[in-house]
Amino acid sequence: MKEVPVGVSARHIHLSEEHIEKLFGEGYQLTVLKDLSQPRQFAANETVEVRGSKGSFPKVRILGPARKHTQLEVSRTDAFQIGVKPPVRESGDIAGTPGITIVGPAGEVELEEGVIVAARHIHFHTKEASEWGITDKQILRVQLQGERPLTFDDVIARVSDAYALDMHIDTDEANAAGVKTGDKAVILD
Amino acid sequence: MKEVPVGVSARHIHLSEEHIEKLFGEGYQLTVLKDLSQPRQFAANETVEVRGSKGSFPKVRILGPARKHTQLEVSRTDAFQIGVKPPVRESGDIAGTPGITIVGPAGEVELEEGVIVAARHIHFHTKEASEWGITDKQILRVQLQGERPLTFDDVIARVSDAYALDMHIDTDEANAAGVKTGDKAVILD
Repeated sequence: MKEVPVGVSARHIHLSEEHIEKLFGEGYQLTVLKDLSQPRQFAANETVEVRGSKGSFPKVRILGPARKHTQLEVSRTDAFQIGVKPPVRESGDIAGTPGITIVGPAGEVELEEGVIVAARHIHFHTKEASEWGITDKQILRVQLQGERPLTFDDVIARVSDAYALDMHIDTDEANAAGVKTGDKAVILD
Repeated sequence: MKEVPVGVSARHIHLSEEHIEKLFGEGYQLTVLKDLSQPRQFAANETVEVRGSKGSFPKVRILGPARKHTQLEVSRTDAFQIGVKPPVRESGDIAGTPGITIVGPAGEVELEEGVIVAARHIHFHTKEASEWGITDKQILRVQLQGERPLTFDDVIARVSDAYALDMHIDTDEANAAGVKTGDKAVILD
């Protein structure tokens, strides 16, 4: 059985070096609150406010390290709440997505694009992917047998030496399935 | 193909006659904003505030007519937001569920039990159910081919002469599937 641990992503933001400095001050370095399941990725102690047209989230967790482009990942529920209309996209694919206002202790950023609802996906280390016959970008059907059993028919496989086995879903998806981080998912085909 | 229209339920409340009077005044009658898909059910013009331990929703839509027992239906996301821990239940099955504070223009109600996350279900008129070989309480697998395709493996069939064909899911479920009211679902078996 191809069993995968589930990681539920709450709304979070990845910041570029340039935006970290604008929001927190020149030369500022994020500090580590907690290591994440993917190697070298961490939840930072720092948070920012994000402001949409209808509302704001005062404390959105920053995930480090800095990335090339700033990217805010929200659930569809979050998006309705603050008044932004992001598409469902893979991480990094932000061309043409909406922007948002980001507020930190040292300044603000008017982000032009970068708000997405993250497409559900599984990170595989190259070794597991190879053993299971799974290739990068493959679309998988994945069953979650939580309190509210369901099968996602469109889970994207992402394969790299830099990844650890983990299925990433957002809070809407976790709540629809009745699962939490650490629960198990099963790849059906 | 067994095709069913989807109806997305936002958070809402059903009130008993007694609670309508406590919240809106003696002899008060709800007024109709909009008829719903189920015969004789309606969204009322009236709303109430509901208050949990961590937050409140200032305008929760009342669905009429009055019921025997007051029942608040929220998504899991809603429940986290206001600090209440309802189980996933079928409508009407409220024994042992948490309560909540309800505030209306004429008074407040300390509800002792009645908060649920509604179990996903399909209403069938007896005629369709019979044609499709579906029986009351049967568990169905139902596919939603929206922006984020998925299959719910635990959809409860509810069959009655008083029902019209409609699949009811909450906002978490709709957002996880990328569907909206009026989209179509397909019963797989």
